[in-house]
Amino acid sequence: MTMANSLFERLRAGDRAALAKAITLVESARPDEQEEARSLVRQCLPHAASALRMGVTGIPGVGKSTLIDALGLHFIEHGHRVAVLAIDPSSPKSGGSILGDKTRMERLSVHPQAFVRPTAAGGTLGGVARRTRETILLCAAAGHDRILVETVGVGQNELAVDRMTDLNLLLMISGAGDDLQGIKRGIMESADLIAITKTDGANAERNARAATDLRQAIALLSPRENGERPGVLLCSARTGSGVPELLRALEGMAAARLADGTLFQRRRGQDLWWMRSAVEESLLNAFQTDARVSGSLSAIEAQVVDGTLDPFEAAAALVRLHRGA
Amino acid sequence: MTMANSLFERLRAGDRAALAKAITLVESARPDEQEEARSLVRQCLPHAASALRMGVTGIPGVGKSTLIDALGLHFIEHGHRVAVLAIDPSSPKSGGSILGDKTRMERLSVHPQAFVRPTAAGGTLGGVARRTRETILLCAAAGHDRILVETVGVGQNELAVDRMTDLNLLLMISGAGDDLQGIKRGIMESADLIAITKTDGANAERNARAATDLRQAIALLSPRENGERPGVLLCSARTGSGVPELLRALEGMAAARLADGTLFQRRRGQDLWWMRSAVEESLLNAFQTDARVSGSLSAIEAQVVDGTLDPFEAAAALVRLHRGA
Repeated sequence: MTMANSLFERLRAGDRAALAKAITLVESARPDEQEEARSLVRQCLPHAASALRMGVTGIPGVGKSTLIDALGLHFIEHGHRVAVLAIDPSSPKSGGSILGDKTRMERLSVHPQAFVRPTAAGGTLGGVARRTRETILLCAAAGHDRILVETVGVGQNELAVDRMTDLNLLLMISGAGDDLQGIKRGIMESADLIAITKTDGANAERNARAATDLRQAIALLSPRENGERPGVLLCSARTGSGVPELLRALEGMAAARLADGTLFQRRRGQDLWWMRSAVEESLLNAFQTDARVSGSLSAIEAQVVDGTLDPFEAAAALVRLHRGA
Repeated sequence: MTMANSLFERLRAGDRAALAKAITLVESARPDEQEEARSLVRQCLPHAASALRMGVTGIPGVGKSTLIDALGLHFIEHGHRVAVLAIDPSSPKSGGSILGDKTRMERLSVHPQAFVRPTAAGGTLGGVARRTRETILLCAAAGHDRILVETVGVGQNELAVDRMTDLNLLLMISGAGDDLQGIKRGIMESADLIAITKTDGANAERNARAATDLRQAIALLSPRENGERPGVLLCSARTGSGVPELLRALEGMAAARLADGTLFQRRRGQDLWWMRSAVEESLLNAFQTDARVSGSLSAIEAQVVDGTLDPFEAAAALVRLHRGA
């Protein structure tokens, strides 16, 4: 029996060590292990469809880990098994690696019905995305039917997460002067639901005002492609207030999308998007690492920058070099 | 003397017919004319730097043409010569071709100090963008030092316009119930200034409230890369109210960016972006038109969609076909 077959049987039987080992296999750069990983992913694919995949985005300090801890326990109380993953290819930019401190998920990280996996080490977004997508499939095949993919909303990560999840939760906090921290332009585009965290004690009133402002701002924006605007909820991981409502909102949205067929339609669109995106990354990588191109690139760029060469003529010249013409 | 040399001398001398003919040359698909067009653009390049390039984005019905008419006349009153261009590669989506009705720019379209050019016929965004960029250079070399590039904010056009202008004006109208029409997600990202149009008569009070709401919404968003948030102005092309203030705001912003060097820095970044973007378009086009790829594409996509083939494995297979490996 191959390693992939053996791991597959063990993870299907709920063996946590096998799941951890399977993920390590998917993350491996060794060609023979990649071969095994491909085989394992193929076996998991038919068993992965029913797991719900949710993105959780928020800047450092918003309280992602503690909220995921609270939310994950609620999912478990409702009979689900939870997995928590993370996308963070560029941890230097994010101000510390997310999930680096598993201890902040005090209850979830030790719960038998939960599986918490810190982010894999860096690499290209495409590489990280691929490994994360495959890890989702492994966790789903291992019986984790509620999968939370955590990301800091500081760059392209939240767009990548939007391409691999069924719905997305954006976490925000209110700062001094009622300002909402954590709306980076573009991020709200991928939010299905927004939760203002740390709504307890002295924050409660301020957060309520912030929620009103945010709802008004959202009303000014066009809806997502599916015609929806993100709802805004208030919650506190510390007191637990709002967490059941958050779970209900997420489950309700997922059920509606399952019922009207848009959930699987979205997944098919995502798969085709990743295929096309991987083709592009591959073509561009071949171009950029082509010695014929890289030998002339800086001279050509210099001419473009000083205005003596038209950018489109420069591009044509570079592509001719790449084709060896 | 070649056609390009003759056209260049005539357009530099202010011959409007020569400018119109030069633009037609740039839009031509004939290889011999493209050759002449390249030569002409090269000659214009050193004379194009001092013209200010402004994007004007707004959905159909916002009153783009009438506002551009009013704004353009103000620029002329301040001693400038104006050119009005348009980007609209996908007019079916935009609900009618913009500038199709030059008569809506009643005064500008017949003014000797203005040059109004309807959008070129469709094509890829890259193709339209290239022709528009070159048309900007021709107009600038012909002495038009205030260039307005009009676009409907319905898709990728406003992002393309952001890549070829020095600053961008977003036009909005207030609709029923104080809602602001015309904020499509992502569009505000490229706005340097927002003008709420048709602020006259019964609209005046409603627009003032809408401006307040909009300023609050903008305060919740992160600033542009340059640290600025778009200002919000009220104006009416019909009464002329707010139009001088709009002109002053645009000129002030341009002067500040010229003084601190960011204007030319932005143009250099744009040129490199267009070069890279043209390389990508060319590589992808070669891939998509490769018979070895297109012969297998739909079968491979079908496997991805039904979940039997991993998107990344599908991409690798397609790239191998393209390389003939």
